[in-house]
Amino acid sequence: MKHPYNLQLDALKSAYANHAFSPRELIQALRERALQLNPEYKLFIHILTEEELAPYLANLEATGPESLPLYGVPFAVKDNIDLAGVPTTAACHAFSYIPAKNATIVAQLIALGAIPIGKTNLDQFATGLNGTRSPYGLCRNSVLAEYPSGGSSAGSALAVALGLASFALGTDTAGSGRVPAALNNLIGLKATKGLISTAGVVPACRTLDCTTFFTATALEASKLLALTARKDPEDEYSRANVGWNTGRSFGIPASGFKFGVPKQLEFLGCAESQALFERSVSTLETMGGIAIEIDFSAFLEAAKLLYEGPWVAERYSVVGELIENNPEAVLPVIRDVLQKAPTATAVQAFRAQYKLQALKVKTDAILANLDFMITPAYPRPVTLAELAAEPVKRNSDLGTYTNFMNLLDYAAVAVPAGFMRNGLPSGVTLFGRAFCDQYLLSIADSFQRTSKLPLIGQFEFTAAPPTTLAKNDRSQLLVCGAHLDGLPLNWQLKDKGGQLLKKTQTSSAYQFYALAGSPPKRPGLRRVATGGRSFEVEIWEIPTQELGAFLNDIPAPLGLGKVELIDGSWVTGFICEDYALETADQISQFSGWRDYLQHQ
Amino acid sequence: MKHPYNLQLDALKSAYANHAFSPRELIQALRERALQLNPEYKLFIHILTEEELAPYLANLEATGPESLPLYGVPFAVKDNIDLAGVPTTAACHAFSYIPAKNATIVAQLIALGAIPIGKTNLDQFATGLNGTRSPYGLCRNSVLAEYPSGGSSAGSALAVALGLASFALGTDTAGSGRVPAALNNLIGLKATKGLISTAGVVPACRTLDCTTFFTATALEASKLLALTARKDPEDEYSRANVGWNTGRSFGIPASGFKFGVPKQLEFLGCAESQALFERSVSTLETMGGIAIEIDFSAFLEAAKLLYEGPWVAERYSVVGELIENNPEAVLPVIRDVLQKAPTATAVQAFRAQYKLQALKVKTDAILANLDFMITPAYPRPVTLAELAAEPVKRNSDLGTYTNFMNLLDYAAVAVPAGFMRNGLPSGVTLFGRAFCDQYLLSIADSFQRTSKLPLIGQFEFTAAPPTTLAKNDRSQLLVCGAHLDGLPLNWQLKDKGGQLLKKTQTSSAYQFYALAGSPPKRPGLRRVATGGRSFEVEIWEIPTQELGAFLNDIPAPLGLGKVELIDGSWVTGFICEDYALETADQISQFSGWRDYLQHQ
Repeated sequence: MKHPYNLQLDALKSAYANHAFSPRELIQALRERALQLNPEYKLFIHILTEEELAPYLANLEATGPESLPLYGVPFAVKDNIDLAGVPTTAACHAFSYIPAKNATIVAQLIALGAIPIGKTNLDQFATGLNGTRSPYGLCRNSVLAEYPSGGSSAGSALAVALGLASFALGTDTAGSGRVPAALNNLIGLKATKGLISTAGVVPACRTLDCTTFFTATALEASKLLALTARKDPEDEYSRANVGWNTGRSFGIPASGFKFGVPKQLEFLGCAESQALFERSVSTLETMGGIAIEIDFSAFLEAAKLLYEGPWVAERYSVVGELIENNPEAVLPVIRDVLQKAPTATAVQAFRAQYKLQALKVKTDAILANLDFMITPAYPRPVTLAELAAEPVKRNSDLGTYTNFMNLLDYAAVAVPAGFMRNGLPSGVTLFGRAFCDQYLLSIADSFQRTSKLPLIGQFEFTAAPPTTLAKNDRSQLLVCGAHLDGLPLNWQLKDKGGQLLKKTQTSSAYQFYALAGSPPKRPGLRRVATGGRSFEVEIWEIPTQELGAFLNDIPAPLGLGKVELIDGSWVTGFICEDYALETADQISQFSGWRDYLQHQ
Repeated sequence: MKHPYNLQLDALKSAYANHAFSPRELIQALRERALQLNPEYKLFIHILTEEELAPYLANLEATGPESLPLYGVPFAVKDNIDLAGVPTTAACHAFSYIPAKNATIVAQLIALGAIPIGKTNLDQFATGLNGTRSPYGLCRNSVLAEYPSGGSSAGSALAVALGLASFALGTDTAGSGRVPAALNNLIGLKATKGLISTAGVVPACRTLDCTTFFTATALEASKLLALTARKDPEDEYSRANVGWNTGRSFGIPASGFKFGVPKQLEFLGCAESQALFERSVSTLETMGGIAIEIDFSAFLEAAKLLYEGPWVAERYSVVGELIENNPEAVLPVIRDVLQKAPTATAVQAFRAQYKLQALKVKTDAILANLDFMITPAYPRPVTLAELAAEPVKRNSDLGTYTNFMNLLDYAAVAVPAGFMRNGLPSGVTLFGRAFCDQYLLSIADSFQRTSKLPLIGQFEFTAAPPTTLAKNDRSQLLVCGAHLDGLPLNWQLKDKGGQLLKKTQTSSAYQFYALAGSPPKRPGLRRVATGGRSFEVEIWEIPTQELGAFLNDIPAPLGLGKVELIDGSWVTGFICEDYALETADQISQFSGWRDYLQHQ
């Protein structure tokens, strides 16, 4: 079914700029459609009334489309996130309350011009990955009626997939922001823990919870993250973002990126799921990536801790009182999940943390040699009938590749990866080190464009691909003298975790000098308009957070600027102020510093 | 009593170089002295036998004093840290075992040439701050017999204070590496959690434990930290050090540093303790520091969590089995401390972590505006008689200013701060953000030299003061164009937490250009041998870990190098490659970029 409105952020921006329709017209149309679809999909626990929508529309009408980055953008809010004046239920009527105040992320989005259209259905207390654990009704899949929407952010995924919102807010503790994305042909961004505020969100596991975005495209998720990632004084688990992850670094990944593929892959006998995953790996290779097989056992072991370990006590600390006083108010399946929680001891809680930490040492070491990892979103999809027959086991199956993520503090994005023969969407997860969100999204964007899979609603991309180079938490650094591999100052790079990426040459626009002064001798690379040539250099990779300390230790006349390579690209590297070259030796007759040293 | 051997690292190095005595002679003399003193001070649970010492001495005799950084340096090992082949007791006979392998830190030190001389007495299971809770005897103070040594690293502090070791290894979970330092005129370094390996250390609270150094001087602690801080694959809580904290940045702190002093100061009625603390604050001011009064309540609230909260369950997870099977094997006072642990629930454990995290948000915000904090080491000293009368209360008193440190993940160093009228040493604690250890030690070094207090053994400093500038985790950055306060690119600094430090001028060795190209216009600062003048610039401060991302975003021909200021100092700041100046406008007639802009 083709939807009349393309709700992608860029498409909406153009439509408003061209006065194709007004926010009021759009919201009215979406509201009618939501009311039509809700009896079947059960995606909304509450659709905002015209009265409730009125102030948002009035605010927009007092300004213009150019004034706000998210002017008139409709979004849905998972019903464990506070929208002022509307009940927050967490899919449990007895638990519900009417918040006086918006959750921080909701307040941010409204301030940016976005319009909340409804509170979406979820697995009760965000405990589940399938979307059927709700007294407000079972959320079927957006494409096939015999499959679930996935959960726990079931209704949020449906709101975007059914064309009722440009994006939706979800939450993710065990995979709730990723599994429903994969099942509904969406991007599901579970950004680094703490980047998106969780103030005003009903906790599942307070130490693990993330607020997430569902969008049609990675580029939209990137924009939303860049607009909203900030330290929130009201969220004690909030974290400040870092320079390389602010959205300005978003773009095309450098060719030659290394991605990990689990050696242990489980598709529970589903050959189609396996084939779709293998095609995704091929797509990354087509993009210039290098697949590296890795031992996935430590990740899988960490995943088990989430429900078998003491973290269920975190969930119990939120709903335990309700269960004790009014057990019937809570679904039996949720009560079952939490049954061990009250007797778990503090000793067990700490021991599980030690175990997790030991596993994280292993998984961090694996990620240290990679730019990111790819896994299936889940081994295979499950039908509603299968879920009804074995509600806990089939739910657990869906979490195979998601449960470890928040425990291990990684950033993750679920990306559409094609369709089963029956039409059901499928997905993969890209994940990596904390604070590499925009890098992962840049890979996801390139993946979406390379795989050319249809977007929801059968729309095409409205935004042009970015042209800058994606950056993660590592920096490339050109060295040309005493820092070359094996030379006297090379330890400064190795001490900081530096790795030699390649030996290459500058463009032919340089002259080369040996500076006057005490050992070790230092080089001066001088860019010139004419009379230059190219010189042998090395490109090292070091953690970006270590680059500043390295820079601070560099004495005048040297510094770090941008140096042109023989392939025309520019890289951060050593430059030299000209004043010092008057007393330096021209050594441009040599091919590089090593050649010069050999002739001394 | 004046000791015949000055055991400071530099003094020993000179003595060995001059063949004043051999390691064998020194160790023999120290061993005899240890055997003499131990009946009174009970500082050793085990003094290494000649047979046990033999292989260490043989190894040294096979090499020379110049070959190893800690050649022939005697050190003592707290008896909850493994020394291969010698029992580890943790001051509990029933718990003791003979480790086959050295703790990582012990192995590191031996490989560097240091010689272990004995295993030192401690409060049982490192649970205590006074040094009297041991079946191996009560550790009296090194100066006054009616006072305790402090604990739990009681014997380790005594070993250094009594001149039996150059340094000693302690541990610190609640203050065990700091309280005994203060009571015995020593430096006690509790470095950032994870910098010194805890592999092979009997855990107290596994998530909080630190291995510590006791030394006579801050400079020695700095050297030991620089030699041993590294990520240990055998310790899952180990953390890699960062570039600005590697010891190369150690030196004299910049004048104008800001330090916090608690508004709430508790001396439990001891005017002398108060006077000594106030003198320490004055000393820091003499050094050029600016005292800032801060609200200390969040720190004090966090401190309470350590024994009143679920962290006692961590201790119980180590000794609980022994207590259950053989309660008499454990001292009654330790059993009392742990009595609530078995019934603490996982829900309580997580809730306490939430509370701690909320407090850390507050304390981090306080520290963000400071270079470091100063507190008393403890409110007032307590006598052995007072401890005997009220063992838990008096012990708690000693932890007033120490218990919060590891919970909040701060680095701390206890520094000698003078003497009571009765001769008892007193101390203060300097603490600050994680990974600012070398900065804190540079302050401590300067403090020791400025206060001119006598060192242990009445020796003078043997090492000259460092002449470099101490660095913490912030960098100074000179900007001269579009990054100036309020100009178009200034947000790049503010986004990264940048703060304007001062407006100043370059030295008179520069020319100034406006580069060709699109808005915003960019400046080119060119250093010249002749014909230069000075220009108005701003110095901003940004987190060093953000400096690299900032650098990466700077396009050619600009870069970051070192710029000379009008006071003759050099600071990291914008430089420009000369090739681009051919097409640039000379604007040296203006006093700076703002002046230039006003005349456009």
